[in-house]
Amino acid sequence: MRMYDIIAKKRDGAALTRAELEFAVGGYVAGTVPDYQMSALLMAVCLRGMSDAETADLTDVMARSGEMVDLSAIDGVKADKHSTGGVGDKTTLAVAPIVAACGVKVAKMSGRGLGHTGGTVDKLASVPGTRTEMTRERFFAQVNELGLALIGQSGHIAPADKKLYALRDVTATVASIPLIASSIMSKKLAAGADVILLDVTVGSGAFMRTLPDAVELARLMVSIGTAHGRRTAALITDMERPLGRSVGNALEVAESMAVLRGSAPADLTEVCLQLAANMLALAGRGSLRECRAMARKAIEDGSAFEKCCRMFAAQGGDVRALQDPSLLPQAAYRHEIRAESGGYIVQNDVERIGTASMLLGAGRLKKEDAIDPAAGILLHKKLGDAVTPGQPLATLYANDPALFAPAEAAYRAGLAIGPEKPPEPPLIYARVTAQGVENL
Amino acid sequence: MRMYDIIAKKRDGAALTRAELEFAVGGYVAGTVPDYQMSALLMAVCLRGMSDAETADLTDVMARSGEMVDLSAIDGVKADKHSTGGVGDKTTLAVAPIVAACGVKVAKMSGRGLGHTGGTVDKLASVPGTRTEMTRERFFAQVNELGLALIGQSGHIAPADKKLYALRDVTATVASIPLIASSIMSKKLAAGADVILLDVTVGSGAFMRTLPDAVELARLMVSIGTAHGRRTAALITDMERPLGRSVGNALEVAESMAVLRGSAPADLTEVCLQLAANMLALAGRGSLRECRAMARKAIEDGSAFEKCCRMFAAQGGDVRALQDPSLLPQAAYRHEIRAESGGYIVQNDVERIGTASMLLGAGRLKKEDAIDPAAGILLHKKLGDAVTPGQPLATLYANDPALFAPAEAAYRAGLAIGPEKPPEPPLIYARVTAQGVENL
Repeated sequence: MRMYDIIAKKRDGAALTRAELEFAVGGYVAGTVPDYQMSALLMAVCLRGMSDAETADLTDVMARSGEMVDLSAIDGVKADKHSTGGVGDKTTLAVAPIVAACGVKVAKMSGRGLGHTGGTVDKLASVPGTRTEMTRERFFAQVNELGLALIGQSGHIAPADKKLYALRDVTATVASIPLIASSIMSKKLAAGADVILLDVTVGSGAFMRTLPDAVELARLMVSIGTAHGRRTAALITDMERPLGRSVGNALEVAESMAVLRGSAPADLTEVCLQLAANMLALAGRGSLRECRAMARKAIEDGSAFEKCCRMFAAQGGDVRALQDPSLLPQAAYRHEIRAESGGYIVQNDVERIGTASMLLGAGRLKKEDAIDPAAGILLHKKLGDAVTPGQPLATLYANDPALFAPAEAAYRAGLAIGPEKPPEPPLIYARVTAQGVENL
Repeated sequence: MRMYDIIAKKRDGAALTRAELEFAVGGYVAGTVPDYQMSALLMAVCLRGMSDAETADLTDVMARSGEMVDLSAIDGVKADKHSTGGVGDKTTLAVAPIVAACGVKVAKMSGRGLGHTGGTVDKLASVPGTRTEMTRERFFAQVNELGLALIGQSGHIAPADKKLYALRDVTATVASIPLIASSIMSKKLAAGADVILLDVTVGSGAFMRTLPDAVELARLMVSIGTAHGRRTAALITDMERPLGRSVGNALEVAESMAVLRGSAPADLTEVCLQLAANMLALAGRGSLRECRAMARKAIEDGSAFEKCCRMFAAQGGDVRALQDPSLLPQAAYRHEIRAESGGYIVQNDVERIGTASMLLGAGRLKKEDAIDPAAGILLHKKLGDAVTPGQPLATLYANDPALFAPAEAAYRAGLAIGPEKPPEPPLIYARVTAQGVENL
């Protein structure tokens, strides 16, 4: 077998066999296939696509390039979730404890975030003392005991994906739905859960900009998970607005805790309940309606918040900070952005909000960059809200006041106030299962 | 400017600007653009194409990556020709002396051949003593004096093409008409001739397998040449059969000399006359009909052969070998391939004949490989000829008799004898000029 022939085959639009994918990916990881051949293949995949079966094979090959975590030491059904990301996307910290409180185990490994804010691991780490690394034995034991652990993903999970992603990132071959789906799902397959719920965000603040693209990515990921014997479903959720009002690590932790204590913004709570209900339903805990009621009860009776506190305690975190956000990292400076005119917010570009957050120190551009857990933005007004001149739109948080001017400029570059209230986008567009797409 | 953005732009199907092409190609030659980015761009070009203007810009950028040969030290119009190659393609050795004998100067630099047989330089070198390297001053002086010089192409001609071709060769990105056209034309533009005649071969033994592809390549190359002020035209010639009866370096030299002495196979002589007539017409020597008569006369009156002898003499070659082929390198062994049944040759795959020739030692697979000038094949019967059982079809020549078995197997793998004479393909399909395509 020759890499040349594999590239030529994909260039001409044919589907690669599993053996060919193993040769290409395995050779690339081993260093026998050079990067210039792999990048030509990746571009051919971008432009020629891949069949569902081919994508499922690629995903499995990438998953098996590293450790396949065996969760059989944990009793019962194990559920995982994944979001394709966005600005202010803090659902995991609320959803995982809700699901665990309802009796379905969550053994979740998260990657570090690149971009506007940190990932789940960065959010966990903003609670003083919290450990996000532990041995497999300790991880299994914590999930068996508490039903819940959130930790960092080890470098041994799908190393092929890591190497391929780094190449895609510099060769303009990221934007391919089969490559995105295989990248995400290879890590989910390797992480070993029986149930996988995917949150596919769509809108100007998300990776998928259009609903058809988001549905296609969701459909493909569900098909991959199902082909490998995992109970998999996806929700298509809105990212034309940030979820909730907080953007930034400690700020988002506080808001996630508000979900668990029943005091969070309605949009955030609603999405968390839907995600939790879908995970529980996939895990066989009942109908979606029953599972949603179960999730709501876990918030109302405090069991979800208690589960969360026990998890943080087990991982060394300061549990008092979950009840009292003033014990979370605090920024030394804050700055109000005020409306310059009155009317309705007709545009409040999510990506610009994300850029502002990153400029304040909440996100990282490169893997090595440090994150300021206290930095971020609190949104007082969002897309569609009525505002009066001079009214505060957002508060910026930073540990260096020089960061406010560029961050405010980024925020304002995506802001427009107009006379008419814009139509409100739905929170959740669709649910995608192995049976098909259900518009919501 | 960032290479990433250039790749993404081509991935999305847009045309690159001249500045972007300069950034990408210049950066690649300088080593600031890594090969994995260039191969992604090349694959995007393969699958998205390039506009005519974009291809003309790319060609010029590649030409200007090295020496732009200034032929102004040579008086009058300078003509060049280029063939896209094939098996037994020996027209240059006959056409260049004919054109020079008719008063149009030919200052031609040729590359070394890769593949079934050597290139023009390898054929020249099979005449004992012939030099194919000389200084620019010597080259100009010889053309001024004799009207003709055929030499090897220096490494300073279009180095960007050399580097890009090496990358295309291992990333399955050779088969792109804009990339093929810019590769060929960058070297022609750099070589400095005023008149460029292209021989675009089509058929199973050629780079272009279909007539529409050959016409498109010809149209594009003519458009590039014309855009850069060169008088450019192309003939589309057949490569379903080898041209003439010889395949291999010394064998082809002998057959080219037979053209000049009026004793060559009719198909080869006809193509040489057409090529010469088109070069002369482009150089303003008269109508095509007049130029064809002029070319024929140069053969009949011996002036073309004399021109050829004077050129070889000037380059140190043994001129006696041009008159007496037994003085050319002779193979120690020969082997007849005979018909196993009677009928008509209904298939005689040109690529298989080429492979047989390479297996005998006449061609090279890698640039470093040595060539045996004496090795090759003499075809006694070609596609469409009637044969009787046991009749010789071809004689193989080699300096190692162990090479005959694999070469015969390759030859026979492409051979079929059937009861009906197959239709005869035309020798020349079309003529492509800046004014359009004229079917012949």
